[in-house]
Amino acid sequence: MIRFECDYLEGAHPEILKRLTETNFEQTIGYGCDDHCKNAAELIKKACNSPDSDVHFLVGGTQTNTTVICAILRPHQGVISADTGHINVHESGAIESTGHKVLSLPCTDGKLTAKAVEECLTSHANDLNREHMVQPGMVYISYPTECGTLYSKQELTDIYSVCKSNGVPLYIDGARMGYGLASDGCDMTLADISANCDIFYIGGTKAGALFGEALVINNDDLKKDFRYFIKQKGGLLAKGRLLGIQFEVLFENGLYFEISKHAISCARRIHDIFADCGYEFLSDSKTNQQFPIIPDSELETLSKEFTYDYWCSVGNGRSAVRFCSSWATTEENLNALEKAVKSL
Amino acid sequence: MIRFECDYLEGAHPEILKRLTETNFEQTIGYGCDDHCKNAAELIKKACNSPDSDVHFLVGGTQTNTTVICAILRPHQGVISADTGHINVHESGAIESTGHKVLSLPCTDGKLTAKAVEECLTSHANDLNREHMVQPGMVYISYPTECGTLYSKQELTDIYSVCKSNGVPLYIDGARMGYGLASDGCDMTLADISANCDIFYIGGTKAGALFGEALVINNDDLKKDFRYFIKQKGGLLAKGRLLGIQFEVLFENGLYFEISKHAISCARRIHDIFADCGYEFLSDSKTNQQFPIIPDSELETLSKEFTYDYWCSVGNGRSAVRFCSSWATTEENLNALEKAVKSL
Amino acid sequence: MIRFECDYLEGAHPEILKRLTETNFEQTIGYGCDDHCKNAAELIKKACNSPDSDVHFLVGGTQTNTTVICAILRPHQGVISADTGHINVHESGAIESTGHKVLSLPCTDGKLTAKAVEECLTSHANDLNREHMVQPGMVYISYPTECGTLYSKQELTDIYSVCKSNGVPLYIDGARMGYGLASDGCDMTLADISANCDIFYIGGTKAGALFGEALVINNDDLKKDFRYFIKQKGGLLAKGRLLGIQFEVLFENGLYFEISKHAISCARRIHDIFADCGYEFLSDSKTNQQFPIIPDSELETLSKEFTYDYWCSVGNGRSAVRFCSSWATTEENLNALEKAVKSL
Amino acid sequence: MIRFECDYLEGAHPEILKRLTETNFEQTIGYGCDDHCKNAAELIKKACNSPDSDVHFLVGGTQTNTTVICAILRPHQGVISADTGHINVHESGAIESTGHKVLSLPCTDGKLTAKAVEECLTSHANDLNREHMVQPGMVYISYPTECGTLYSKQELTDIYSVCKSNGVPLYIDGARMGYGLASDGCDMTLADISANCDIFYIGGTKAGALFGEALVINNDDLKKDFRYFIKQKGGLLAKGRLLGIQFEVLFENGLYFEISKHAISCARRIHDIFADCGYEFLSDSKTNQQFPIIPDSELETLSKEFTYDYWCSVGNGRSAVRFCSSWATTEENLNALEKAVKSL
Repeated sequence: MIRFECDYLEGAHPEILKRLTETNFEQTIGYGCDDHCKNAAELIKKACNSPDSDVHFLVGGTQTNTTVICAILRPHQGVISADTGHINVHESGAIESTGHKVLSLPCTDGKLTAKAVEECLTSHANDLNREHMVQPGMVYISYPTECGTLYSKQELTDIYSVCKSNGVPLYIDGARMGYGLASDGCDMTLADISANCDIFYIGGTKAGALFGEALVINNDDLKKDFRYFIKQKGGLLAKGRLLGIQFEVLFENGLYFEISKHAISCARRIHDIFADCGYEFLSDSKTNQQFPIIPDSELETLSKEFTYDYWCSVGNGRSAVRFCSSWATTEENLNALEKAVKSL
Repeated sequence: MIRFECDYLEGAHPEILKRLTETNFEQTIGYGCDDHCKNAAELIKKACNSPDSDVHFLVGGTQTNTTVICAILRPHQGVISADTGHINVHESGAIESTGHKVLSLPCTDGKLTAKAVEECLTSHANDLNREHMVQPGMVYISYPTECGTLYSKQELTDIYSVCKSNGVPLYIDGARMGYGLASDGCDMTLADISANCDIFYIGGTKAGALFGEALVINNDDLKKDFRYFIKQKGGLLAKGRLLGIQFEVLFENGLYFEISKHAISCARRIHDIFADCGYEFLSDSKTNQQFPIIPDSELETLSKEFTYDYWCSVGNGRSAVRFCSSWATTEENLNALEKAVKSL
Repeated sequence: MIRFECDYLEGAHPEILKRLTETNFEQTIGYGCDDHCKNAAELIKKACNSPDSDVHFLVGGTQTNTTVICAILRPHQGVISADTGHINVHESGAIESTGHKVLSLPCTDGKLTAKAVEECLTSHANDLNREHMVQPGMVYISYPTECGTLYSKQELTDIYSVCKSNGVPLYIDGARMGYGLASDGCDMTLADISANCDIFYIGGTKAGALFGEALVINNDDLKKDFRYFIKQKGGLLAKGRLLGIQFEVLFENGLYFEISKHAISCARRIHDIFADCGYEFLSDSKTNQQFPIIPDSELETLSKEFTYDYWCSVGNGRSAVRFCSSWATTEENLNALEKAVKSL
Repeated sequence: MIRFECDYLEGAHPEILKRLTETNFEQTIGYGCDDHCKNAAELIKKACNSPDSDVHFLVGGTQTNTTVICAILRPHQGVISADTGHINVHESGAIESTGHKVLSLPCTDGKLTAKAVEECLTSHANDLNREHMVQPGMVYISYPTECGTLYSKQELTDIYSVCKSNGVPLYIDGARMGYGLASDGCDMTLADISANCDIFYIGGTKAGALFGEALVINNDDLKKDFRYFIKQKGGLLAKGRLLGIQFEVLFENGLYFEISKHAISCARRIHDIFADCGYEFLSDSKTNQQFPIIPDSELETLSKEFTYDYWCSVGNGRSAVRFCSSWATTEENLNALEKAVKSL
């Protein structure tokens, strides 16, 4: 079986395993206070052009989202999110389990707009019954989105501008940050991302690491006591250096960006395999997630040899499915896919 | 100013104040273990034709909803509600503050349908990623709804049937229960309500009491340790007898039903005042909440003499507003309203 | 049976019932925004000599404690309390249910000391592993304490001084505030209390009201958005005016202080009834709670005619029990008690 | 610097890194549904002689404790723990953050006794005010304890017997399970542990793995929907196979027990190094944590070359400190320690 259903199918980039092996018998202090973590934090701050930020390393995405949102909000507040946002649909109620409502706004392509965010904030502020409602206390977006789409620099700065003028922090879930930045449609650098939000994370799990997410806090108000929150939410890894070492490898020579480019080039290939055979797509994704629309009968054939993620029915016996590339996608598997699609 | 914006504008039915005064110097044990509470519970069980139920008295509606929902759900579960449900929009995130997502389903008239509930339950059960999502663990409906509409007996039994076959409890918020049961369109008794849900409450605050809600637990599995939950959520009134005494007065001679009928008769009058002058209504409410649609310019005039609750704009310079009747609505105020509407 | 087990055995001071009856058919806006609440707030601020404070009215003590503590603390923080504190032992885990640990300090008489609070705060601040521990984020004391004891003005200012220099708010639970201020040993006024804490409440439930607690917020940082918290925790009474009216009666002519004095005079009588017969006491209480130590065999005799609260065994077949006086205690009942004790 | 302060100073047993490297490019399904996890679960069930148990893999100890306790308790319940228990002191309030009080019982050596647990349970059950208190809903113990002590088989079966007859589950935190089982004083096997509790975890982080804990659920009532809880609490690792692979290596040929024996032999050496020089110990630990009592002046000397964990002052200018051995402790470092201690 050749797998394409997600971007966490394999282990880690070999360079990471090599470094973990080389450093294995170093003795280091625990909980992320070691030199590897410090060095990785410096490398990331440099890549973000953000020398005054705080950088923390957590294990996974749901954990990072929960820790951040719970740390920012006061008890009467909720987090604005696109209704397709990961926190709204695929985290088993992790945000609510910390006491906060996800204030979901309808969207068509996974993206919030500055206008929708502003309307949500002002309609709450103007509602005479607002004290009977959840106060919007922050904004969550994902880059790229769960639908594979990207915010342009203008769109992001517009959202951030609304956030700033309303005094609510903007948080960016960057589980697939590398794949977003390497995409054809992207007009931003990591430094642009960092300059346009209060807090965000750079995903490692889906982009070359065994596991791990690097959280960057730009807003001074959010820095205080943050390690308490990480500990309380179960994210303070005893051997924190494992996270530091992985991000050192990813950021010391640009490996994170290089392998992201590889994934995007593979995604383009996936796109073309389907497009060349006349298939349509659910969304115009330039990132590592591609959503071709395929007749269910053909899916049955494909599924004998390949895995993909079932996304949704689009009616008339056709469904949208997700094929992902990643840092680990091979030419060989793409060739096999091409052959199979052509012969459908 | 003559007020019509809600059904909690005055104090209590005079009979209640009289009884509170008469019993004022009785010495009773605290926290609802007194004889007044016991007697009131018996009266309510009789009215519900439900001798094996447990009855508890709480202070307010948000408190009752929070206590019930938090007591029923396990941490990974949420509560299904119409998107207009009080718990979804007007309780300041009380449900989420106890760790649970409100799984809101879109509706047009404030009512869930058995079909929509079933689809929500089965689509979750069939989703391969369900462990990454909030599990629906109970169903919340209000009777009457926040829109003034009513479930028919058939609609309610259908919903309860879906709940039972899926093993999720059904909870009915009866903040305005009396007004629902007294409505023209109603084909149920209190006993029918009780026979078709696992747990529900009979609202006192809006129907003759100073404050207080009577919670009826029919499902044995939900009875255990319930007083702990009431205490933890701040609802175990020290002088619990205040609640018992009020519900004694309301249920010993049918006062609850009698004053509800008065309110519905007043609501019919409100309806006719507007209908006779050619106004349309947002919903076909037979209950004590009426939602006439009125040009904004006329609202301005009306608001000099009357209060109402602004509901929503319906476009073209017209808005739906809420006028409520209650046990305390007077002929005199209705006459004044009639005169004012006629002269618009 | 003559009851002495607590101070919430009867209804309310007759003047309160009278006023509730007089105002019964006034139509007022809901949720505490009415003129009675505004007027009551002004009266209380005047009594506290604290014109810039915010005053809110809630229904009960556990609810008030939970709302305040949950509003103040951030998720990684806990509240310092004497181990006998009501929040630590008798609120069914209400504080923990909002996510916060009660950091209980051992005490012998229900009182925290400035020294113990300071040690707790500095030992946390100096602990190299502090990020793995709950950060003390506020201090809770009760006045009078659950043991009937009182802080002197010096003791209170010392504690508040430690709080201020460590940046943690001080909160005073005044469920029996009136009885404390009316006690023989008391060297403070309500204004002194208010001047020496960030936030506190004046209990009505146990001192003349049917129910209700008046929360006074002195610290500006704690004022923002407070009504959201009250609503979320189920404390925003629909007919909020019921609370306003009761506190108007209690504070417009000093009734609160007058009836508190009556209770203390009755408590002195209870004390003397037992002391004159040679009984010892568990604590040297000057307040409305008295804790005589009585042989269990004699308790059995007493319990045929009187109720009291069992407190604890002190060994050798003797137990401490609690006898409470209140605004409603009668000469007649005290005479009966005296007769019974003398004949033991 | 030679480090002895904890047992998570190095990476992982080389065999684990080797296997991670060998399997690195396997494509596997995510979230612990892969064959490595299945195989590891089978190996563990076999080692536990517990074929019907459910086995789940989580990332860290605090996360595992929080997930388990939150999944078991209902909202009004708390968890009984020794006051030294990790959940009570070193998890930043993680348990409370999910709404539950830690009901800590005083202990002298890190161990609960069956008697103390029973008294706690029955005193609650017999308290007339119990509904105002937190109900004990489960028991937490650690094996070995945070003080390095061990329960004997008799002690454990006594506690479990009390738990079963009171209907409360027993949970064992086995962060250092291997080191406990390999200790001189231990009279139990892993199967004995498993037979005497409802749920427990076998720690990997401190015993040869990079990270990871294997949770074993014996009680059928606790199995349902458990993966939802893991996901919600951030413990469902995307590349779950990383956990499966590590536990396969640890359990397929007894590596877990073998390396634990090495650590215990090193701990014995640490003990003897200090004992032979006349030092006393805080507790009679047979496990991998040793707590010698050392004059502060000598600690200053030691700390130039070695790290240890400061435990507590024992007065008279002496302190107890913690020296840990682990699977990775080297002869060379022990020799250096011996030399240094002898020359103090």
